[in-house]
Amino acid sequence: MKTPHIVVIGGGFGGLAAVKALVKSKNLRITLIDKRNYHLFQPLLYQVAMAGLSPAEIAYPLRSLLASHDQVEILLGEVKEINKEEKWIQTDTNKIHFDYLILACGSTYTYFNSPQWEPFAPGLKNIMQATEIRRRVFLAFEKAERETDKIKQEFYTTFVVVGGGPTGVELAGTLGEITRYSILRDFDHIKPQQTKIILIEAGPKILPTMTEELSREAVRELGELGVEVRVNSKVSEINENGIKAGDEFIESATILWAAGVAANPLNKKLGVELDRQGRIIVNRDLSVPGHSAIFVIGDQAHYEWGAEKKPLPGLAPVAMQQGRFVAKYIRNQLEGRKLPEFRYVDKGQMATVGRSRAVAMYKDIEIHGFVAWMAWLFVHIYYLIGFKNRLFVLFQWAWMYLTNRRGARLIIEKE
Amino acid sequence: MKTPHIVVIGGGFGGLAAVKALVKSKNLRITLIDKRNYHLFQPLLYQVAMAGLSPAEIAYPLRSLLASHDQVEILLGEVKEINKEEKWIQTDTNKIHFDYLILACGSTYTYFNSPQWEPFAPGLKNIMQATEIRRRVFLAFEKAERETDKIKQEFYTTFVVVGGGPTGVELAGTLGEITRYSILRDFDHIKPQQTKIILIEAGPKILPTMTEELSREAVRELGELGVEVRVNSKVSEINENGIKAGDEFIESATILWAAGVAANPLNKKLGVELDRQGRIIVNRDLSVPGHSAIFVIGDQAHYEWGAEKKPLPGLAPVAMQQGRFVAKYIRNQLEGRKLPEFRYVDKGQMATVGRSRAVAMYKDIEIHGFVAWMAWLFVHIYYLIGFKNRLFVLFQWAWMYLTNRRGARLIIEKE
Repeated sequence: MKTPHIVVIGGGFGGLAAVKALVKSKNLRITLIDKRNYHLFQPLLYQVAMAGLSPAEIAYPLRSLLASHDQVEILLGEVKEINKEEKWIQTDTNKIHFDYLILACGSTYTYFNSPQWEPFAPGLKNIMQATEIRRRVFLAFEKAERETDKIKQEFYTTFVVVGGGPTGVELAGTLGEITRYSILRDFDHIKPQQTKIILIEAGPKILPTMTEELSREAVRELGELGVEVRVNSKVSEINENGIKAGDEFIESATILWAAGVAANPLNKKLGVELDRQGRIIVNRDLSVPGHSAIFVIGDQAHYEWGAEKKPLPGLAPVAMQQGRFVAKYIRNQLEGRKLPEFRYVDKGQMATVGRSRAVAMYKDIEIHGFVAWMAWLFVHIYYLIGFKNRLFVLFQWAWMYLTNRRGARLIIEKE
Repeated sequence: MKTPHIVVIGGGFGGLAAVKALVKSKNLRITLIDKRNYHLFQPLLYQVAMAGLSPAEIAYPLRSLLASHDQVEILLGEVKEINKEEKWIQTDTNKIHFDYLILACGSTYTYFNSPQWEPFAPGLKNIMQATEIRRRVFLAFEKAERETDKIKQEFYTTFVVVGGGPTGVELAGTLGEITRYSILRDFDHIKPQQTKIILIEAGPKILPTMTEELSREAVRELGELGVEVRVNSKVSEINENGIKAGDEFIESATILWAAGVAANPLNKKLGVELDRQGRIIVNRDLSVPGHSAIFVIGDQAHYEWGAEKKPLPGLAPVAMQQGRFVAKYIRNQLEGRKLPEFRYVDKGQMATVGRSRAVAMYKDIEIHGFVAWMAWLFVHIYYLIGFKNRLFVLFQWAWMYLTNRRGARLIIEKE
């Protein structure tokens, strides 16, 4: 019998969990395709944007990660076409046949119907964007320092973060920490602690998937760091002068986008039913309706769960559990064992706000402040891949906590 | 009396040494201008290009470095004009008057009369270029892996380094180390250890400022790492297909440029005598002829020394000694003390070749191999700025030595 070939697209949390579970069977051939050569620990990407960590500390080369597994082949490339019936995919360079396909391509930012906003309000999905945000943030302070005009100084020291989800809260909170701790004594003509940081959320509360109490606590903690939170505030315009939110135009040189997640555009090419966010509505076994050999996991999938039949959120634990499930499902099918059922185990939610501040919930337990922050640190170190990365990140955080300095404060010139 | 205002352009080794020596006088006003917001430890930049270190580990934010000195102001900007008579400079945003001016702008790469070669053979002077070289090198292996055609695989796994100075030797040697150690087991369709690495030097020997013996030793050590050295080989063409060196056209996807240093283009605007490399020919006190309040140091200056009247080389110790000298000169002049004379103290020379291999000379002492490599490591850790950077780099090197892995192997997508 020919060795079954399983193609996994995407080396994020979901895809990597699937590959790691698939290699337990020695008689499989696995191809992992990614447009990047590394696994990125996305939850800490905002710390790269905020100069706390270096890209290499939260990224791990896929080839090193899987070098010991001979049955795994890694291909750098972008998938351009998927043929469900003939079971092949086409990347920018190669055509690959599969017996099973696992789609784990994640999500991207959407600017709804206003793509013209993007140049003025970069999102945070990859390393290039993170270093670009870092460049803009620290350049804004340099520009303010060079100005003598108070109005212009205010323009450069006003930061607006759009989107009150975890990423928005983390970006705004860390901006607060930077201006209230890290760069306090670095300038002669501006007072960083007077920096205006505004977090804008279209809905009625920030951290919408958390409880009312934790959301309020996050607002309070953000306030301690100088962040003003505006809810029920809809963005209607973003340009080089600032942003219109609700009825007010806020003059600001630096706007960061952390709203409007959409699934990978590849989904549209599949010719199957999608939800409003562009996610594929999958079967109970995470397969694509009508195509039992194609599975979709993580941010790319719409999978309803619980009494309320809500789709599972775009979180790392969801993607990882789905990746492991699909791997087991395929292995059992090939080896003639009983097929498993997918059961989601809620690992809780957490968001860090800034220095010693976070909110977290696990089942009925809600915590905030220093304890939640310590829990957040522990969980993120624990899930980071690679002993060296763990040690480095831990040491960076300890150093940052003790000295308030941010070592990666580099404004890297663009070409 | 008005507080004397000293303007220093460039926060490299020379400029920073000058500022650090100037702050010993409390009654001076100092402005440090740099187009970057960080001091870059240039001698280790090739390790960023070769995925051994992260940019933040060899860069230190200028503002953090000088935050405790109230008399120092830092301005991010590029100098566009210098008026020697009226004593002011114009940056892209500000006009600044000075009593003394210290020019420490360093050098850049020149492609002689062939600027069209640059896109095919990037140089290594800043972080952006280092990450671009890293991207090209590691992408070349990925492209080779995707090919089935042997000729095309060879095209992607042939690397040419132009220039046999320390940077060229370090780049070529580290490429050897990467292909012979780091990525040995990472690919399925190519054998990294068969990678061709060719180091091209126009002159009769590599490391031209070192002795015949050390140069030969470097060739031998490079050979152990698979690097072929070609001397007396002049480049006459570089394009997307490869490079013509001597009579041969070498087909290669990845060419790195480490030849042809030229002083900062700002020099041409000064209206004073320059040498062939564009450096300002300075007085014995490092001032510009006819302008006793303007000093030039480091790579930007042509300063003859020794019995042979050769200009001092573009090395960090030269720039640092000159920076400290000029600072002392200005302070003594202002405080009515005896003016010092510049005396260059030779700190020797060293170049690392790769894992456990280096060459070094200090006065009459010549060493090579493991001992020279250890000396190289020690000196570079010692001169690196910042306790955290030292610790991180030391740990990165120890980890790389023990595991042969390179953590910063990231192909960062371009915008």
